[in-house]
Amino acid sequence: MLYKRNPQLNKHGELIHLLSIEGLPRSVIHHILDTAETFLSVNEREVKKVPLLRGKSVFNLFFENSTRTRTTFEIAAKRLSADVLNLDIARSSTAKGESLLDTIANLSAMHADMFVVRHSESGAPYLIAQHCAPHVHVVNAGDGRHAHPTQGLLDMYTIRHFKKDFTRLTVAIVGDIVHSRVARSDIHALTTLGVPEVRVVGPKTLVPGDLKEMGVRVCHDMKEGIRDADVVIMLRLQNERMNGALLPSAGEFFKNFGLTPEKLALAKPDAIVMHPGPINRGVEIDSAVADGKQSVILPQVTFGIAVRMAVMSIIAGNEA
Amino acid sequence: MLYKRNPQLNKHGELIHLLSIEGLPRSVIHHILDTAETFLSVNEREVKKVPLLRGKSVFNLFFENSTRTRTTFEIAAKRLSADVLNLDIARSSTAKGESLLDTIANLSAMHADMFVVRHSESGAPYLIAQHCAPHVHVVNAGDGRHAHPTQGLLDMYTIRHFKKDFTRLTVAIVGDIVHSRVARSDIHALTTLGVPEVRVVGPKTLVPGDLKEMGVRVCHDMKEGIRDADVVIMLRLQNERMNGALLPSAGEFFKNFGLTPEKLALAKPDAIVMHPGPINRGVEIDSAVADGKQSVILPQVTFGIAVRMAVMSIIAGNEA
Amino acid sequence: MLYKRNPQLNKHGELIHLLSIEGLPRSVIHHILDTAETFLSVNEREVKKVPLLRGKSVFNLFFENSTRTRTTFEIAAKRLSADVLNLDIARSSTAKGESLLDTIANLSAMHADMFVVRHSESGAPYLIAQHCAPHVHVVNAGDGRHAHPTQGLLDMYTIRHFKKDFTRLTVAIVGDIVHSRVARSDIHALTTLGVPEVRVVGPKTLVPGDLKEMGVRVCHDMKEGIRDADVVIMLRLQNERMNGALLPSAGEFFKNFGLTPEKLALAKPDAIVMHPGPINRGVEIDSAVADGKQSVILPQVTFGIAVRMAVMSIIAGNEA
Repeated sequence: MLYKRNPQLNKHGELIHLLSIEGLPRSVIHHILDTAETFLSVNEREVKKVPLLRGKSVFNLFFENSTRTRTTFEIAAKRLSADVLNLDIARSSTAKGESLLDTIANLSAMHADMFVVRHSESGAPYLIAQHCAPHVHVVNAGDGRHAHPTQGLLDMYTIRHFKKDFTRLTVAIVGDIVHSRVARSDIHALTTLGVPEVRVVGPKTLVPGDLKEMGVRVCHDMKEGIRDADVVIMLRLQNERMNGALLPSAGEFFKNFGLTPEKLALAKPDAIVMHPGPINRGVEIDSAVADGKQSVILPQVTFGIAVRMAVMSIIAGNEA
Repeated sequence: MLYKRNPQLNKHGELIHLLSIEGLPRSVIHHILDTAETFLSVNEREVKKVPLLRGKSVFNLFFENSTRTRTTFEIAAKRLSADVLNLDIARSSTAKGESLLDTIANLSAMHADMFVVRHSESGAPYLIAQHCAPHVHVVNAGDGRHAHPTQGLLDMYTIRHFKKDFTRLTVAIVGDIVHSRVARSDIHALTTLGVPEVRVVGPKTLVPGDLKEMGVRVCHDMKEGIRDADVVIMLRLQNERMNGALLPSAGEFFKNFGLTPEKLALAKPDAIVMHPGPINRGVEIDSAVADGKQSVILPQVTFGIAVRMAVMSIIAGNEA
Repeated sequence: MLYKRNPQLNKHGELIHLLSIEGLPRSVIHHILDTAETFLSVNEREVKKVPLLRGKSVFNLFFENSTRTRTTFEIAAKRLSADVLNLDIARSSTAKGESLLDTIANLSAMHADMFVVRHSESGAPYLIAQHCAPHVHVVNAGDGRHAHPTQGLLDMYTIRHFKKDFTRLTVAIVGDIVHSRVARSDIHALTTLGVPEVRVVGPKTLVPGDLKEMGVRVCHDMKEGIRDADVVIMLRLQNERMNGALLPSAGEFFKNFGLTPEKLALAKPDAIVMHPGPINRGVEIDSAVADGKQSVILPQVTFGIAVRMAVMSIIAGNEA
């Protein structure tokens, strides 16, 4: 592997970057979730603001565009009183031929405190964390197919909120697993937190073969995959990444793997339905389910702000 | 009609959204203008900032691009100490096929406090107001040809500032009435405030036939329309919306309906000239008029910030 | 000349705009550098924030796109506690045909306090300074080939920091002089500060003929130009401005004028190497030099934030 030592933790085992859930100790994950719980109430107050990052400069570096995710980090940082700088990276010096590491060195020299990085290349946030100045903290906001750790953490927050105990659960992750950094982050988090049965469910073309090694059960049949599940995590079908080769049609996908009330009836009666959003109604999820009683898709969004506030405030408080 | 009950007011008759001037009681309009007056002085202070929206998250949702209008709302919100989030909505999830209401539900779940919405579809801000969470307030920043209520209110502020009493005025609105949400909002405001004579002036192709029902006088002759007016509101000729079918040429339009010093001489000697901007010099207005003594175009801009601060602070203070 | 009286200074000789280093008295330059020194420590604090521009509205008006430079001004303004408005000017009213001066008059009417202007036309910031309201201050962030005064000032800060005394130095500016507003600003600053020998070094096609009148020595041979220099300022080769006519090839340019360790050995042993960034590795500068011990390219970036904070706070404190 490229990264021997876990670059996310300092020598005291404290979180200084959030790059991946892989390798995060269970105690660190629970510390993040506990901290997020305190921020949930901040977000419900009249004045949704705490001074924890006052005078800090947080840079949103979205090499891959995502207005939604960028906005969640921007809100989280502003509610911590940070100054937020959004870099339109596609139009900036990188486009003029400057290397990624030169860009990072330059921004570090401006006394940046935190980089929130989304990049289409897996590993880019690691590269940045390894080369930026010691006072700078890095949060991975999604890199290639590799990881999306804040999504994984907010999913864990949601599951803990509704199900309390991880050690008795059956969790099914359904859909386009092969392209999904969310799936990868969720699997690492769920196994670290002691979930006894994690299933990945999808057509053979969309479920990678090496997942059994990660300790998950692979199901190519939706009924088998969802039966008696406590939690069903539907993934977004990345239409924009499909070229027709992997998938016969959206209609056929929905027939086999789309979550309808009928299929959901196979899960436990109190199963919750999650989705990282934005949802494709009628493609991977039926509107009756997305808007139904078991859906916790909007609470996920709410928890996501609190989780990002927790991650930012924790790493900013620890020294490299 | 689509909207039976007035969704802008709560059961106490207090403003909770600003969607249209149509249906706003005269007392509410005057309350907004009175509040704006107090904010005018804030904008002239050394420290142009009051803490009324501190810790609130205001989202600028411009589905139709308008840097100018977006900026006026952004300044207004920042001077009220709000956190402002600009969503580049054209590049966001909506572009990925997410529905408008799903986008709104998601942003609401982030504990948004206010949406400032511009949309090319008439009625979009109503739809949003009807479906968003009860803690969220909506300001219409222009929807299709329907309404542009903050522009209407800042126009009323300007008229009240310079003319004091609405009940003795003759107001002429000149130009491309048919495409103008500004005209529609101004007409509702002027009639509500008791202006006895409102005239709409323009070629037959640019003045809709149903305006007489709104209690205004339709003039297709500029001299007739402007004679003895106290207030002349020139509209922007939306070049980008014209396809040649409705209008012979910009030159011909200027000859017939462009405001020149000669034509302005037909109005009262102390008539004021207004324009929502940006102006097309030599198309709908002569430079000698735009920069002349009777022009109050730049004061309109100044008043506009105070009016937007007033609207935002009033609706944020009322509960659904 | 177009500008008889120096529009940057008020009648007391105090700085009210920063448009160009040409015409700035030595005392004003040193005052800016001294003030910047106090801000350097602010940027190293836990809470990187001072309330000097609290409640002021700073508008970034980048008619020519530059994410990097815009970001440096945005950070500087936010660390001074200003409200910052970024105008996507390419998509705004100017694109709708509004004149530059109408745009400026409108933004002034919103009670703007400061415009940071980048424009492809030389002189645009002067035009703006001459026409905006008296309470508005203008900072030139680069206009055409004319001037880039904050870059010039941060270069002077860097030289003063490392070399203390300007009056014994030999400074070589190397590369594409003809297209470089940085070179022009540096030359004015260096001669004002009493540097006895300023050399401009580059091929005949890239060094304008009229530079000798500015009191500099023109060298078309790199070895001659760099010999015994205390400071070597490399310029970015503006690939995007080249059409092949002026330059045989990037490879040939590097061979003749690229800064390699071998060429740098001709300068004084303690010479410093500067570059305005972003660097083109292997085009105008060798990686071994850019990353070497004599390079002060990243300190330049750090000093740049402090210098911009100094400029903004000084001009905001002086009245027209």
